[in-house]
Amino acid sequence: MSVLLTEIHEQPAAIARALSSSKSAIADLVAEARRREVQYVILAARGTSDNAATYAQYLFQIACGLPAGLATPSVHTLYEASVSYKNALVIGVSQSGAGEDIIEVIAQAKKSGALTAAITNTEDSKLALAADHLLLCDAGTEKAVAATKTYTTTLAIFAALIAAWSGSAALNKHLAALPENASKALQTLDSSGRVLELARTLIHAPQLLTIARGLHLPTAIEAALKIAETSYTTTRAFSSADLLHGPIAMIGAQTPCLCFLPGGKTKPMMETVVATLKARGARVLTLSESADADLPIISSGTELLAPILDILPAQLLAYHLTVARGYDPDNPRGLSKVTVTY
Amino acid sequence: MSVLLTEIHEQPAAIARALSSSKSAIADLVAEARRREVQYVILAARGTSDNAATYAQYLFQIACGLPAGLATPSVHTLYEASVSYKNALVIGVSQSGAGEDIIEVIAQAKKSGALTAAITNTEDSKLALAADHLLLCDAGTEKAVAATKTYTTTLAIFAALIAAWSGSAALNKHLAALPENASKALQTLDSSGRVLELARTLIHAPQLLTIARGLHLPTAIEAALKIAETSYTTTRAFSSADLLHGPIAMIGAQTPCLCFLPGGKTKPMMETVVATLKARGARVLTLSESADADLPIISSGTELLAPILDILPAQLLAYHLTVARGYDPDNPRGLSKVTVTY
Repeated sequence: MSVLLTEIHEQPAAIARALSSSKSAIADLVAEARRREVQYVILAARGTSDNAATYAQYLFQIACGLPAGLATPSVHTLYEASVSYKNALVIGVSQSGAGEDIIEVIAQAKKSGALTAAITNTEDSKLALAADHLLLCDAGTEKAVAATKTYTTTLAIFAALIAAWSGSAALNKHLAALPENASKALQTLDSSGRVLELARTLIHAPQLLTIARGLHLPTAIEAALKIAETSYTTTRAFSSADLLHGPIAMIGAQTPCLCFLPGGKTKPMMETVVATLKARGARVLTLSESADADLPIISSGTELLAPILDILPAQLLAYHLTVARGYDPDNPRGLSKVTVTY
Repeated sequence: MSVLLTEIHEQPAAIARALSSSKSAIADLVAEARRREVQYVILAARGTSDNAATYAQYLFQIACGLPAGLATPSVHTLYEASVSYKNALVIGVSQSGAGEDIIEVIAQAKKSGALTAAITNTEDSKLALAADHLLLCDAGTEKAVAATKTYTTTLAIFAALIAAWSGSAALNKHLAALPENASKALQTLDSSGRVLELARTLIHAPQLLTIARGLHLPTAIEAALKIAETSYTTTRAFSSADLLHGPIAMIGAQTPCLCFLPGGKTKPMMETVVATLKARGARVLTLSESADADLPIISSGTELLAPILDILPAQLLAYHLTVARGYDPDNPRGLSKVTVTY
């Protein structure tokens, strides 16, 4: 069996391990953040980890009332900026823990007085050693070039961190049910056969757009990345808000648009966007909890955790589309597991 | 003549007006920011204004040592997050000043103790009234749906703000020469005829990628947006760093890649990326100060101001490609000047 497909199915167990392995480190980090009166959060990451960081950006603001933003590592690595991170919590995310630019952001942040943390799947990595706190994914070695289990375990760790920070009992309860729900989601997808069916209709699609809103935007971005890097489709992710600010003009007849409609605050707006896209002749593919969805998603009990489950059908779509096109899902052309930033 | 083409050529004069009209407001803002000991900056914007905000994100960090990040307005408008912006400077950017979500971020920021400012082309707009400080673009009415002069005037105002904040004499000197250099850049482009020539070779290109690094990333993103919204090309912008983290796999033979290589810190890395893309068979189109560039760019004397001049050839390319395809550059299908965020 393909390594990618195996790793996609390892996610429920990996998420359970991540939640358990990071528990005490998360408690320590929250205690120190409280003591130091952290005022805002900066997240430093690249690629898939950057999509996980974007999820955290929303969560910190929504659930903890903390301003949160994404770092631009090149200000340190290229421009040697001397930024003062006093009163900040700076979190570096890298599955390999070897991303030099992320390590540089953490080093600079620490030097200028920030509290720092690393989320990585590699316990003895340079990133893990550079940061004050280590939150370990414990996803097991990830062999496929396209990251899946390191992505969802990173999301789970962020969710657990935010649950501990906000003290939300509801969030903690839904978090405990997450591995079981992830398992249920994969079983539903596999038994329905709908992903394979959909992939076959997309074999000749040169491009594909992914669309979501708010907290679910990182899901659209990660889905676009996963599909692009394995199946070589030209993909692009949009916030439905930004889409209407210009780019909708480029959507022509039959452009496949993967639209994420999980239950919650974004659903009514996404329904409007779906109707607008259909009126323009686009080929709309929906992911929702409704029976008429093109791909089914499973409720995690709260909108805040939805991104951890909603990426699963997109990962499977990336896999099936790649195989349907006759490509190797485990070794995309021109990519390696650890990327050096030029 | 097309309104879009007219407005592209109005930019040198509009930049000169923006620098002069915003001067005293910038001095007031910097003085208050110093007094209040602002610790970090949040920028709230959508669409083209968001690209201008990304430029400012780099500038605040590189030239002022201030952490800076982009807001995610939906945390307020959809999720009603109660974020504490104490010690922050929050800047809302909207050419119309009517973007409800940007106004909401500014209102929330003010309420929770932030210093706030608005950059807009509409003096009596709701955004202008909501913020503590108003920095006016003074670009004149922008009639074309695709924003050009409100983009470059916003960049110029950000550059002037950072020059005042950092007290850099060099930056202030190069800023004064900016209108003249913009004029020179447009003249060079118009007289060479190269943009029109290049546009004609792209008539049948279904997609186009734009690639830059660091401080020039907003130029690539804005170029991609401008070309997409007028000529209906599927475009996507990449940081060269992110490109190598996966998406490079989707670049096939003959994919046109518009690569920005201004002089400065990013040039050596971009040269490596250009070589990598060529080796994969992509069709590389360069923008640089070299004689062998596909499109010429003009030095602004400092890398920090380059994005204000380097977007000009891309705006002209968007115009000429649109006309070459027989579309209306002034009224793209499905777009309006003020966008309501659903």
